[in-house]
This record gives sequence, structure tokens and C-alpha cells, in this order.
Amino acid sequence: MTNRSVLRDYTREYKKKTPKSARMFGRSARMHVGGVSHNIRYFDPYPFVVKSSAGKNLADVDENHYTDYWMGHWSLILGHAPPNVRDALNNQIRKGWMYGVVNEQTMLLSDLLSRAVPVAEKIRYVTSGTEAAMYAVRLARSYTGRKVIAKVDGGWHGYTSDLLKTVNWPFNVSEGTGMVGQEKIISIPYNNLEESLKILGRHARDLAGVIIEPVLGGGGCIPATPQYLRGIEEFVHKNNSLFMLDEIVTGFRFRYGCIYPTMGLDPDIVTLGKIVGGGLSIGVICGKDEIMNHADTSSRKKTERSYIGGGTFSANPASMTAGYATLYHLKSEKSTYARINRLGDYTRRELGRVFDGRVIVTGKGSLFMTHFIKDDTVEITDSRQAAQCDTEMLHKYHFKMIAHDGIFLLPGKLGAISAAHTESDIKKMIRASEGV
Amino acid sequence: MTNRSVLRDYTREYKKKTPKSARMFGRSARMHVGGVSHNIRYFDPYPFVVKSSAGKNLADVDENHYTDYWMGHWSLILGHAPPNVRDALNNQIRKGWMYGVVNEQTMLLSDLLSRAVPVAEKIRYVTSGTEAAMYAVRLARSYTGRKVIAKVDGGWHGYTSDLLKTVNWPFNVSEGTGMVGQEKIISIPYNNLEESLKILGRHARDLAGVIIEPVLGGGGCIPATPQYLRGIEEFVHKNNSLFMLDEIVTGFRFRYGCIYPTMGLDPDIVTLGKIVGGGLSIGVICGKDEIMNHADTSSRKKTERSYIGGGTFSANPASMTAGYATLYHLKSEKSTYARINRLGDYTRRELGRVFDGRVIVTGKGSLFMTHFIKDDTVEITDSRQAAQCDTEMLHKYHFKMIAHDGIFLLPGKLGAISAAHTESDIKKMIRASEGV
Repeated sequence: MTNRSVLRDYTREYKKKTPKSARMFGRSARMHVGGVSHNIRYFDPYPFVVKSSAGKNLADVDENHYTDYWMGHWSLILGHAPPNVRDALNNQIRKGWMYGVVNEQTMLLSDLLSRAVPVAEKIRYVTSGTEAAMYAVRLARSYTGRKVIAKVDGGWHGYTSDLLKTVNWPFNVSEGTGMVGQEKIISIPYNNLEESLKILGRHARDLAGVIIEPVLGGGGCIPATPQYLRGIEEFVHKNNSLFMLDEIVTGFRFRYGCIYPTMGLDPDIVTLGKIVGGGLSIGVICGKDEIMNHADTSSRKKTERSYIGGGTFSANPASMTAGYATLYHLKSEKSTYARINRLGDYTRRELGRVFDGRVIVTGKGSLFMTHFIKDDTVEITDSRQAAQCDTEMLHKYHFKMIAHDGIFLLPGKLGAISAAHTESDIKKMIRASEGV
Repeated sequence: MTNRSVLRDYTREYKKKTPKSARMFGRSARMHVGGVSHNIRYFDPYPFVVKSSAGKNLADVDENHYTDYWMGHWSLILGHAPPNVRDALNNQIRKGWMYGVVNEQTMLLSDLLSRAVPVAEKIRYVTSGTEAAMYAVRLARSYTGRKVIAKVDGGWHGYTSDLLKTVNWPFNVSEGTGMVGQEKIISIPYNNLEESLKILGRHARDLAGVIIEPVLGGGGCIPATPQYLRGIEEFVHKNNSLFMLDEIVTGFRFRYGCIYPTMGLDPDIVTLGKIVGGGLSIGVICGKDEIMNHADTSSRKKTERSYIGGGTFSANPASMTAGYATLYHLKSEKSTYARINRLGDYTRRELGRVFDGRVIVTGKGSLFMTHFIKDDTVEITDSRQAAQCDTEMLHKYHFKMIAHDGIFLLPGKLGAISAAHTESDIKKMIRASEGV
């Protein structure tokens, strides 16, 4: 019995309910590369076109509603347009959304971040996670005077040229053409400390730093073991390199703050994004004083400084306000995390039950991802294993829920539960999965 | 007579009227590198802290008001929070500001851009100008299979590692530490066609492309001559490289569209930002079909593609809406450009008159910059000449207007006139300059 027979084709059903999206995407394809503004936003036969959102829902131009677990690339932990953030943002819009100078709104967000994130002795706001990762790498190279950066197989740190390698399996094939300096990026196997240390050992003298997501996001929603991260950190610090964590997905996702303190880690630089901008553009570089001060252009000459942005949109009052309102809510409503983490546990357990041994559901807290296993795989601890699962089946499963059940996960990607989701939403998703 | 005696010290006056800013910036300096979120936002003794904006004005936390010519890094051509953009944005905020999927709002902006910018056969939205420049370079390298990129001395394309060279004079000193692949960036002298062609000639076989701002922004507000750009374009095309224009500052600044068609140019890739996002985060890569399609990951394998974003915030409905409302207004109110360009001409002429031969005022249309000449300089055509002017005097002049006259230009930088400015605002600035 092949997958094709397990899951019928929902394309006709999808097309029937999305005629306006079909026309509009046709137009989009004439204007945009691949019809989209982000590669991963395309899925066959065409993605529906959204016109509004509210709480847990996306609404498309054909008036279809979808319970959304994509949640703006997992940035919307309070759901779409939550009232408190929406009102704060509307008030801010009346006062302007682009000052281009030092502003009061930045102080409010930084006050919260400084208190919640120990490594944030100094903060620099930038515009995106891609930029934050680029600057983290530059800082590590500046601080150490070395060039080599290590990342993990399947690690995703945005599109920066400085880290665009070993993202997608097979990892030994370049991610694309047109890049330089790739020989200065090395890659280690995630959650495999012994092999990782062997590779790092060969580069110890040239190693500027290591950057890792504590839970692989794009790479398959796979948590790192604390032992793995502690082992890498120990090696890195022993060799005078920097230990960097990319908490763009994980920061403020599982608790009010980063995940690293719960794992007994002491990173030198942490990048943040997504949730801390409340859904508006943001990237944050947090780091220890001694390191971050290398970016101080007012006290350092060109030959001594790390030339770190900024940018036109850094610390703009709209992003600062959305971020502040989001974090303030999370700080005040302490039960939010307990509730969505519990819904995540429930989701993973129930999906495992429904698919009865044919899947492994990875994740942590409110993040979950379903992997259809092909063989006798018993656990998924790295991105290679995730890529070797039946990803075609995962796409079909997600597409079936889009076409038939009004449930949206970006096909092939992990899901995020927000404060706007309820237990009955999860139950609806479980029932939709039972039909597969 | 030294400059010091020409212009008295306004520090005491500034401190007296900005006590809250002083306290708040002290707090900012403890939380942020250099106290700021963008290096250039700092000035001595401390920058005032803004709390709101409206039309031509910035208001600080001490209730001082400043007629603003910085205008959000020159992104706000309609002024701060213009009513039509504000209302459109507030309506959009109620429907959400982060969909993370294909959306209707993107189509509206792309419709306008596609029609107004001939080279925009395909569009890709990203989050910042820094990202747009990074992707333009990557595309050129992918398309040509070559690695070398040329920029001009004093050219500014954001903080991307791929172009962070020869930005600030002296150009032969690296901009900072911690970068790799710098040997693949070469630099040519702006507005000097003969020397530029000599340098390009030595790299003709390895040259992936050239990227130039048609008016140097950060490099001193200096227009390129059409002959210079046409000469570079001719060389580049003859050698099968790409001709790229960075119109992040100039796009929709002087006319409804880019400046390049008025100069008889035929670029392959054009980057946009600032104005086309209406003050919210945006970067745009516009290019010819044949080139942009190299970024289509849905039809190309890893070994054939240029891996181009996206990002979480690309084509978010808030930026799309602010951009659309701004462009729609500019398209409908055809007199806007004529009026602000005329105010720019008036400003340059009157500043030249007031400073009576001691300055050269560069710029074009609504952009202007005052250069205090030190010797017998008669024209400023490149960034080196601008850097060799009395930049200390320029800072003092700008600071005097901040402290004494309620007029804000970011010290040392160029000014931008918006639709919110009137002739009487310009006259006030001219009078304030007369006191210098």
C-alpha cells in the first residue's frame, strides 16, 4: 500500500474553494519570483492568498478561514492581532512609525529584555534575524581575530552569506551558487557530541565561534540535548572561541526569557527575533559587555571595531511597541506558557496515538512537528533523520488539512500553538489527522 | 579666525533644554552598544530622545519640537505619520500585521512598482536594504558564475558583508574587523570614468557585476553624472557582467519611479527600499526575468539556484500597506515632486548665498548637503572630496540648529525635504544658517 492510496488527492477540493486565490496567484507569479516573497511560502498547486487575520485564524480572499499553526513563521505567540498589541500599535501609529533616532519606545522593550535575558548586558537592535546572525558572526570574528565559524548540519540562521551552508540535506551539496567565503564555515553533526568535538578539534586554533539553535527550527523541530550544548560550550570556551545561541525561534517561546538558562548554559552572544518584535520586523543581538563593546564605533577606530548596524529600520517605534506589548502581556499573564506548553504536550501525544507508530512527533513546549517514518526509525535527533522521513507524505497530510479541514500548517513545516488556540482547536486537528 | 570662534558652543543651551533626554540616554548607554541602535544616531554630548512625530516635526521627551530634515533616514517623503498612510496602516493593523503567507496587500504594492519601474520584471521583497544589496550581489555571482563585485569609493549599500568596503574615507583602510571574502570586492573612483574603466579592465573576466548609487547617499549626497553611469554600464554589458543600481535612496525620491530611466540607463538589477515601504521595514530586489528566475527554488536544484530570501518579515502586510498608501498618494498628487524638488533647488541656492563661497551645497531634487570647504575646492564630485571638507564645522552647524533653532539634521548628514515642509520652513532654516 503506497502513500498515494492512503491519502486521496485533495487538489480538486482545494481548487474549488479557492478560485479567487488561483486568479490572484496567477498575477503574483507574473510579478514575483516563484510567485512568492519567501521561497517556503509556495505549495502546490498554488498557495491561497490571505486578506486578513484574527486570533487563531487566517482568512483568504475566497472567505475561507483556516485555524493557523504557522502563525507568522512562529512569531505570533499571542495569535494574530491580539487586542492589547493591536491597540498599543494603533496608538503608536498615530505618533509615527519611523523616527530614525533614539526613542523612548526602545527603552521600554530593552528594559524588559535586559531583565529577562542575562546575556543581554548590551543589546543592538537590527531589522531581521538574518541580520542578527550576520552581525553575531562578524562580532565573533572581530573579537577573536579568527575566521572559522561552526554551525550544525540542518541549522538555520537566515539567509546571511556568512552562514548559508549545510542547511538542507544532503548537507554536502552547496545551498546555492554565488557565495564566497564558504570555506570559513564548517559544520558539525547536531546532537552528536563525540563527532562534533572531533571536527571542532581540527579547527580549534582558527575557530571564532559556534552558533547553534537550542531547538532546530527549519531543520525539523528537534531539541538539542543539554549535554550536547554543554559539551560544545565547554570545548569552545576552553579554546577561547565564542559560544553563540540562535534563540530567534526559542526565545520567549517556552518561558518568559530564553531557553538557555534552563539548560545550564553560559553563551557569549544570543540572537533574538520573531516573538520579541511582536510580529513586526526585528532582530536582536544580545551579548556580554566585553564582546559587544567591540561594536562601539564612537570609541573605536576602523581598525579596531566590528562594523555592526543598525540600519534604517532598527529600533523603529512600531516594532519596539509591538515587542514591548507582547512581552509585557507574557510577563503579566504568567499562565500563558503553562497553558500552551501543555497543549503542545497534548498535541504530540495525541498525534502519536492517532498515527499509531507510523510517525514520530518532535518538538518542545508549544512547537510540534510530525515526521512520517519510512523504516524502523525510533527517534529523530538530527536534521538528516528528519529529511529522510517521508516528507512527501507530510506535505500531503498538511495539504489535506488545508483543503478539507480549514487547518493551516505551512506544508512540511513545524506547527506553533499560540495563546489564541484552545483545546478544542487541537482536538479538531487531531480528528482531521485521524482521517489520514 | 578658527572655526571654534566662528561658532560658539551650544552644548550648555542643549543640555538645559534636554534634561530628560540626558537621563534617558544615560540609561540607554547602559543597555545598548554606544547607547544607540544605529551607529550614526549618536552625536555629542548625547542625542535627544524622541517620543512622537507628526508631519515635519519630531518631539522629544522634554517637549522640544524639531523641524526634521532627517526624516527617518530619508524614508518619509510625505513627512511623519501622514494622514492617508496613517489611516491605511491603522486599518491594516486591525486585520493583522504578520500573515507569513502570500497576501493581497503585496499584490497592490507590486502592481504599482511593476508599472513604475521598467526593470521590475520580477520582484522579491525582503526586510531591509542591507538584505536587498546582499541578494543583488548573490544573484549577480550566481548568474555570471563569477565572484568579483565592484562598488564605488564612498558607496553605501548597507552593512552586508558582501559590500562592506571602501565606505568611509580613507578608503584603503578596512571598514572593520571580522569580515571574510573582502578580496572579492573591488572599488572604483566615483565619477571618474577613465580610472574606473582601467580598474574594471583588470578584472573583466572575473567581474560578476557593478553596484552603484545614482546619487551617493551616505557618501555625501553627490549625483553621478549620466556619462559616468552610461560608461560603466557599457563596459559591464560588453563584458557580460551585471549592471546594478542601488536606488534605495533615490527610488521615488525625485519622480514617481526610479531615477535611472531619466539617465538613459538599462540596469539588470535595481534595489529599492525606504520610500517604497512608507517608513516601515522593506527591501526590494527588482530585476529582469532572465536573471531573477535564478532565484526560483521551486524550479531549480540547489546546484543551479541562487538561494534568495525572503525572511520572516518579507512582504508583511504592514510594510506593504504603508508602501502602497505612500506610492498611491505620490501617484495621485502629481504636484508633490515638483514642489519638493523646487524647495530643494531653493535650499541649495539660498544656503550657497548665506555661506557666501565658504560652502558647496550638493544634492538633487529634495536632497541637499552642505559641505564647508577648507581650501579652493570648486566642486564636489566624489566622496573623498566630501570627506576632506570641514566635517567638524558641519557637525557644529547642525548641532547649533538642534540646540538653538529647533531644526534637526542628523549631524554631518544630508537633509531631505518632505511634502510636509513648506517654504517658510526652509526660510527658517536659511535664517538659522545666517547666524553661523
